[in-house]
Amino acid sequence: MKKKQLKATIKKIFVNHGLSASHSAICSEAIINAELVGAPSHGLARVMMYCQRLKKKLINPKPKIKIKYISKSISYVDANNSIGFVAANIGIKKAIDNAKKTGIGFVAVKNSGHYGLSGYYAEQAVKKNLIAMCFTNAPPAIAPYGAKKSLFGTNPICFGAPISSKEPFILDTSISLINRGKIRVAEKLGKKIPRGVAMDKFGKLTRDPKKALHGVQLPIAEFKGSGLAWMVDILSGVITGGNHGGKVKDPFDDFSGPQNIGHLFIVIKPNLFVGNYNQRIKENIKRIKKLPKINKIKEILYPGQSKYRRYKNNLKKDILIPKNVLEDLKKLNAFR
Amino acid sequence: MKKKQLKATIKKIFVNHGLSASHSAICSEAIINAELVGAPSHGLARVMMYCQRLKKKLINPKPKIKIKYISKSISYVDANNSIGFVAANIGIKKAIDNAKKTGIGFVAVKNSGHYGLSGYYAEQAVKKNLIAMCFTNAPPAIAPYGAKKSLFGTNPICFGAPISSKEPFILDTSISLINRGKIRVAEKLGKKIPRGVAMDKFGKLTRDPKKALHGVQLPIAEFKGSGLAWMVDILSGVITGGNHGGKVKDPFDDFSGPQNIGHLFIVIKPNLFVGNYNQRIKENIKRIKKLPKINKIKEILYPGQSKYRRYKNNLKKDILIPKNVLEDLKKLNAFR
Repeated sequence: MKKKQLKATIKKIFVNHGLSASHSAICSEAIINAELVGAPSHGLARVMMYCQRLKKKLINPKPKIKIKYISKSISYVDANNSIGFVAANIGIKKAIDNAKKTGIGFVAVKNSGHYGLSGYYAEQAVKKNLIAMCFTNAPPAIAPYGAKKSLFGTNPICFGAPISSKEPFILDTSISLINRGKIRVAEKLGKKIPRGVAMDKFGKLTRDPKKALHGVQLPIAEFKGSGLAWMVDILSGVITGGNHGGKVKDPFDDFSGPQNIGHLFIVIKPNLFVGNYNQRIKENIKRIKKLPKINKIKEILYPGQSKYRRYKNNLKKDILIPKNVLEDLKKLNAFR
Repeated sequence: MKKKQLKATIKKIFVNHGLSASHSAICSEAIINAELVGAPSHGLARVMMYCQRLKKKLINPKPKIKIKYISKSISYVDANNSIGFVAANIGIKKAIDNAKKTGIGFVAVKNSGHYGLSGYYAEQAVKKNLIAMCFTNAPPAIAPYGAKKSLFGTNPICFGAPISSKEPFILDTSISLINRGKIRVAEKLGKKIPRGVAMDKFGKLTRDPKKALHGVQLPIAEFKGSGLAWMVDILSGVITGGNHGGKVKDPFDDFSGPQNIGHLFIVIKPNLFVGNYNQRIKENIKRIKKLPKINKIKEILYPGQSKYRRYKNNLKKDILIPKNVLEDLKKLNAFR
């Protein structure tokens, strides 16, 4: 389907579910962006879920979002159970403003929900020539090292840095061996997941996405990945006032209350200490790209580069919507 | 050997190499601590190297360390090629001071050297009831994803959080599958390294520590770990004014100039946003520790916990010094 039409359609769906036109546009923009960068697990496949949660008042369509001033660098956003996209947009924009004024912006958000891709927010800061780190927690998906029950979310670590290139440097890496969204897509499409990335609820390795979703995803690098996920839970959940320690509800399965996800945005001016940051970062990337390559590798890519190339390529094409997702959207009366 | 005697001995060695008594004490303390926490790769095995670099004036025994005020939160330390321990101690202490005053301390250090264990500095902040993140780069050890030549250091990610326990929560995880120091220890002891953690210079897997040291270490989680190492290089090298992009010299092998390592310390008050942080973090850890465990696991440990237990245990014992390290120390005239 044509992007422009689809974006208007998604916006209309959110408006029909009670969101303001401007909030609906923010959601639609983020969802179409996820499709374009090749992360459909964070795109259209979630619209039905968001609408179900809106209908059940678990997402507040007309949130009264409060921004508390703590210092010129530090702000605290109570998102009042807003949809995550809107809360996170406010959070990153505030962090950008604070960083421009003082060198560092440090913004926590509570009472938010799933906000899509962390990289989407880091990119906003990078486009303003700022460094950004974004942290969010998520519903239980990964077992802490030693446990046979999920508790941590896929808790991404996200870092972006300006590099004076159209292709932004954005690392956005979940702590799981595979993104939970990819398992959901495999489930929707009836496909298997890769070997060795998840266990069923009895602790046995599985390639069945359904069993994996009810079981345990494995973290990268065992104790190390588990520790990184724990760090993200503390930064985005414990200190922000958001849910933490396995209490973030699964948005697809648990309609017993709002998610109260927390986010943390750290934005930094890259030239706080050195006057020639732009030159230094270019030199850094140049040196790394020039290294001798292993067989079959044509180019050493920095984080975010292949995502941007997918985006550029997808911009030229219409968005393909899987049949079941299309049916969801039809049910939401979008295509009457 | 008795710890007290050994600590005095190491201090004396540094004094004899031109360091002030107070700087020598800082170094000795950090080195003995590395032995006690079970990281001998960052302990006595490095004393000869430090002394060689001091003799060749690659480490400045009498540095004029300058601290530049950027804001009440942000400081910039030019360590004047001081030994890393001293530079990093100044950096973390300044970050702690700034955080106490403003909520956030953000301190970059340039012209430093290898500073030992990141966790040692994070622990200083944690003991003051502050959250800390410490970043440092290191000599080339890991190949960026797609390259067959090392460029990134083992670039640890270090995070500490106060949890009102004697056993501090400190994640200190290198981005390599194995710590470079452990390969050095294996080399010194004539042992093999684990399978699948390193390649020789031709890109073949190896278990020979010598070949691994001249070859390539593998990052955790392939592209993800490579991206995390890149992030650490930007945070600790590019923005600080330190060396970066593979230019940090190996302290053992390269005597052509100072290392100019950069560090970045971020220290945060944990109760900026919530009044009940202590209660929240205790609840967080309690929930995770109570999870059902996989076979053979008796206790789910948080990061830093097993290290602290080794430390407690080692406190009761004398420090065992490998023969070749003892010979090094004798050469340094310590035991005349």
